[in-house]
Amino acid sequence: MATLKDIEVAAAINILTAFAFFVAFAILRLQPVNDRVYFPKWYLKGLRSSPLNSGALVGKFVNLDFRSYVRFLNWMPAALKMPEPELIDHAGLDSAVYLRIYLVGLKIFVPITFLAFAIMVPVNWTNGTLEHSNLTYSDIDKLSISNIPIGSDRFWTHLVMAYAFSFWACYVLKKEYAIVALMRLHFLASEQRRPDQFTVLVRNVPPDPDESVDELVEHFFLVNHEHYLTHQIATERDKIINNPKSIMPAAFVSFKTRWAAAVCAQTQQSRNPTTWLTEWAPEPRDVYWANLAIPYVSLSIRRLIVAVAFFFLTFFFMIPIAFVQSLANIEGIEKALPFLKPIIEIKVIKSFIQGFLPGIALKIFLIFLPTILMLMSKFEGFISISSLERRSATRYYIFQFINVFLGSIITGTAFQQLDNFIHQSANEIPRTVGVSIPMKATFFITYIMVDGWAGIAGEILRLKPLIIYHLKNFFLVKTEKDREEAMDPGTLGFNTGEPQIQLYFLLGLVYAVVTPVLLPFIIVFFGLAYVVYRHQIINVYNQEYESGAAFWPDVHGRIIVALIVSQLLLMGLLSTKQAAQSTPLLIALPVLTVWFHRFCKGRYEPAFVRYPLQEAMMKDTLERTREPNLNLKGFFQNAYMHPVFKGGDDSDSDTASGDGDQEPELVPTKRNSQRNTPLPTKHSGSVSSLPEAVQEHAQLL
Amino acid sequence: MATLKDIEVAAAINILTAFAFFVAFAILRLQPVNDRVYFPKWYLKGLRSSPLNSGALVGKFVNLDFRSYVRFLNWMPAALKMPEPELIDHAGLDSAVYLRIYLVGLKIFVPITFLAFAIMVPVNWTNGTLEHSNLTYSDIDKLSISNIPIGSDRFWTHLVMAYAFSFWACYVLKKEYAIVALMRLHFLASEQRRPDQFTVLVRNVPPDPDESVDELVEHFFLVNHEHYLTHQIATERDKIINNPKSIMPAAFVSFKTRWAAAVCAQTQQSRNPTTWLTEWAPEPRDVYWANLAIPYVSLSIRRLIVAVAFFFLTFFFMIPIAFVQSLANIEGIEKALPFLKPIIEIKVIKSFIQGFLPGIALKIFLIFLPTILMLMSKFEGFISISSLERRSATRYYIFQFINVFLGSIITGTAFQQLDNFIHQSANEIPRTVGVSIPMKATFFITYIMVDGWAGIAGEILRLKPLIIYHLKNFFLVKTEKDREEAMDPGTLGFNTGEPQIQLYFLLGLVYAVVTPVLLPFIIVFFGLAYVVYRHQIINVYNQEYESGAAFWPDVHGRIIVALIVSQLLLMGLLSTKQAAQSTPLLIALPVLTVWFHRFCKGRYEPAFVRYPLQEAMMKDTLERTREPNLNLKGFFQNAYMHPVFKGGDDSDSDTASGDGDQEPELVPTKRNSQRNTPLPTKHSGSVSSLPEAVQEHAQLL
Repeated sequence: MATLKDIEVAAAINILTAFAFFVAFAILRLQPVNDRVYFPKWYLKGLRSSPLNSGALVGKFVNLDFRSYVRFLNWMPAALKMPEPELIDHAGLDSAVYLRIYLVGLKIFVPITFLAFAIMVPVNWTNGTLEHSNLTYSDIDKLSISNIPIGSDRFWTHLVMAYAFSFWACYVLKKEYAIVALMRLHFLASEQRRPDQFTVLVRNVPPDPDESVDELVEHFFLVNHEHYLTHQIATERDKIINNPKSIMPAAFVSFKTRWAAAVCAQTQQSRNPTTWLTEWAPEPRDVYWANLAIPYVSLSIRRLIVAVAFFFLTFFFMIPIAFVQSLANIEGIEKALPFLKPIIEIKVIKSFIQGFLPGIALKIFLIFLPTILMLMSKFEGFISISSLERRSATRYYIFQFINVFLGSIITGTAFQQLDNFIHQSANEIPRTVGVSIPMKATFFITYIMVDGWAGIAGEILRLKPLIIYHLKNFFLVKTEKDREEAMDPGTLGFNTGEPQIQLYFLLGLVYAVVTPVLLPFIIVFFGLAYVVYRHQIINVYNQEYESGAAFWPDVHGRIIVALIVSQLLLMGLLSTKQAAQSTPLLIALPVLTVWFHRFCKGRYEPAFVRYPLQEAMMKDTLERTREPNLNLKGFFQNAYMHPVFKGGDDSDSDTASGDGDQEPELVPTKRNSQRNTPLPTKHSGSVSSLPEAVQEHAQLL
Repeated sequence: MATLKDIEVAAAINILTAFAFFVAFAILRLQPVNDRVYFPKWYLKGLRSSPLNSGALVGKFVNLDFRSYVRFLNWMPAALKMPEPELIDHAGLDSAVYLRIYLVGLKIFVPITFLAFAIMVPVNWTNGTLEHSNLTYSDIDKLSISNIPIGSDRFWTHLVMAYAFSFWACYVLKKEYAIVALMRLHFLASEQRRPDQFTVLVRNVPPDPDESVDELVEHFFLVNHEHYLTHQIATERDKIINNPKSIMPAAFVSFKTRWAAAVCAQTQQSRNPTTWLTEWAPEPRDVYWANLAIPYVSLSIRRLIVAVAFFFLTFFFMIPIAFVQSLANIEGIEKALPFLKPIIEIKVIKSFIQGFLPGIALKIFLIFLPTILMLMSKFEGFISISSLERRSATRYYIFQFINVFLGSIITGTAFQQLDNFIHQSANEIPRTVGVSIPMKATFFITYIMVDGWAGIAGEILRLKPLIIYHLKNFFLVKTEKDREEAMDPGTLGFNTGEPQIQLYFLLGLVYAVVTPVLLPFIIVFFGLAYVVYRHQIINVYNQEYESGAAFWPDVHGRIIVALIVSQLLLMGLLSTKQAAQSTPLLIALPVLTVWFHRFCKGRYEPAFVRYPLQEAMMKDTLERTREPNLNLKGFFQNAYMHPVFKGGDDSDSDTASGDGDQEPELVPTKRNSQRNTPLPTKHSGSVSSLPEAVQEHAQLL
């Protein structure tokens, strides 16, 4: 078991690492030669031009103004300065709301930490249970619930605190849900006219022997929806020339009014509920084309296969992690490799191993995971990139919960418990886990420092894109356009980022009552990450789609899950402390929390799933008054076009893209969706050079 | 443990009882004086007039034609003769589909029984495990899985059979779901014009300081729905005279077309998802008026309260049942009341006690339950009688599952196991229950005979309505109208009837692999109940609403639950028989079943929840072509009227009702909804005397 001394060493190492990253970042970002690595967002927006074109030769590549090095942390206040509405304009609602997740963390945990340190730390500290026992313990354990004697009345404090923390967390969550829901509705309402506001995606168009899919769609919607305007079928270009049967049984149907689109998206069209499936069309650049044509039966079989595959993935990943962790403690290494014993016993190395290795072992395993999960989601048949990422995030969270959280608590102490685990009663599981929790506090503290402190500081350095950019720049780049393509702004990466934050929510809520000394570490993470990601969103990331914060119900739901888990584990822990009289009171807590979740779901979730008719009608009426002669049909022309067709146009559009005389698309469509996409496509590049022209056009239309 | 002899005695008693009931019914129904008790449906339809008005004095009251007594079972073929489409016309889709539940039981269990007797009974019988053991056993146990030695390869038979039975059950279920969904759509499509096809119920109209609810509703829908026609607010009559604030914030909004109503019912109206809630209006007579005005927050609190209350109801009911059952076995009674020992030891009495008492004790407890559950559903805030009954049925099923099924299996053998039960692992629970299952076969066989054979035969006798009718007839009835009111046709009582059937599905599926000898008893139940209820639906019951078989997804879901339970219990049972190598194969079975359920849910459930726009448009177009000058506004006049208003009109309408010159309502509204309503209201009475006039009017409109 790690002592306070080990923690101190680990903290020192991690703080130094984080500090070194920040200094390196401060120096590198000031060099003009790195400008495109650290400020790609501004290049894409066309608001920053290369400093390489002006000044003296040396000054082009290295910043010689030494005054700018002094204030090496001045990016932090700069990152915080941009007000939220401007941020939404600049980077989209998704990014702005994503940052609010960190704020929620601060809002929940700062007051909880103060309360915990004011009340619970003294209550825990002023006992002598551990001192009078024969157990080995650290000073951190003296601050935790372990220091309270069995059957003590002091457990009432923990019970009351569990209520207080839960109520506070729910209060913050409810307020935040309301704010985000309003932000979303406001965002959707104040947006300019966009094709997806008028468009519905129709899937599983039933085959008809007499009509082509094209005709069929037109007839069906002409008959059943009086506001039908036009539609586009997403066909495979090369195949269609050879084989007309490869037309996908799916179409993007556009309507004359938002009202009609809202109606069509929310209703069932035909007698057979598995044909003529309608739903809101995703943004054009959010569409995942490959999945549009999967029929219903295939979809439901795919879902089964992925569910089974994910189950095996989750439970077989556990074995290597547990194996590495069992090696990654002093006794384990000494047993496996006895000749290393003299080296390991050196005090600094011992502390290093204990503080670092378990966290790193986990981290390496987790690097390969997101790609696999993304493949699973794609196989499962979601039709927009945003929903692919949301689904992957859910799976990643479940995986982390079982393997990182439970895995570290159970197998870390005893691998053989794993097998017993599935044979324990519903009553026994929270008890087993609950008992191990206080013992694992030091492990999670080091984990937070490695993953949450040094990891976040490393994020801002962008070492990988930096190296790749310079390699490309050196070997490949010939024209200015090549240089633009060599930039890799990256995206937020919701599918990996959000589950990571959720792990901190889980740790914070679970340890709030048990070992409150862990809370400040969590707060540092949330604060640091907030500043770093705000900086990255403003200066670096280029979000590839805009879902209007559609992910918030997931975020909210997972924090609720963390809350319920913390309550159940506390129940299990207290039941071993012979504080049984408190159990009925503790049972009420998860019941109330579940009820709270259902209340919020009914109250706020529809804002993220449906589109109110009143809103649609209001915008339609406004538009009709302002622009009575609007030609919507031209507006929809090619809004939803399969990338294969786009690809064919490239040779023409490339030459025209610089001039701005071509009818620009309102929303540039990008095919590549992965975070690690090395090259942004030509379209985003070409549009980036004429954003004003686009906006003017949009207003003229 | 009951022996085969005990079963024989119980079977003899129950068969005799059932026979006696049938004979009594055969005699009583032929007496003219009882005509209104046994054929009220035909009186309500106006197709039968009282035999008391004609013939000789004695012949008026007693049937002297002795030939008619000879064929005392001739009602059975008569009940089966009416074809299904005619039955739907006669009694509605709800009743016709309800009967199909019994047919599903026959379709599932008849082939399973044949297969089980052909294969599994020989496999079980040809072992000597029980003969060579020191256990007490009966001949029934020799036919069950208990007779197979531990670790035997013969368990593969049971495994294969579990697969075969599950696939067959799923096949029947899927086919039936498809048929019922089609029947529902056909029924809705072929129906005459009804107000609820054009009407949407709007709830939680937000308060407005400047406008009344009336004006507010009109303005909102005029703005947001171009097909808006008219609306009716359900106000409290007496209060409104004194206090205009008592107007409910709810309204029935009618549209010009079915299409517009379908759109409005399926979409979200306003930004705030808890106001302007729209849903399909129930049939006028199906509306539960008292619950229309409950606001969202109150609704969600009520739901929490009911959930907690139901939890306590379910788990505290268990104690008295277990107590009575522990008395109701020979040893228990002899211990509690030792002086009865000589009487009990008489063989006939002993068999009687063992065969009868446990079933009866259960039955008495269950009599009071439906009323409580109905009150809970009402408190919870459902707005139609059909949904109240569906919800009560769900609760009743859960209650029966825990208290009758699990309660009988666990507490019947040892009450102290109850306490241990919640402390057992997810792995252990199916094992504990699974092991007890073969031992409880004889108990459930007697239960089926008491509840399912004699009980169903008692249903047809209608002893309670018979007595009440004659008492009323003697003391109260003065005019012919009084006599009409004294009739109590009753209804199917979905909230109690369906969960009862589901218990038989559960027992049948659980015992199919374990003790197949129970299956013929189940088949007799399904066959007998089908004939009896078909007779009752044709001749007696007067369904008070028509939901278009909206209950089928519930029925389907619960059979699936029974299937999964049976698979889990078999897994538990086999794991104690050291047939562990079969466990992985058994785990796949519930996974596949859950998947099958989700597949069916996506494929068929929308037909029961939503209304396809294509259908609506088709009917609208047809109607517009046929009747271009239709005045729908007049048609909706007073279609949805609070019963308080109706009550006030009675004095006027009573005199007019006989003439048919008054504009009759298309669908008579009845306020009383309970099965045990002693008197049908005046409206159903008055309408029953002029059904042709109503139908003519409806066609003229």
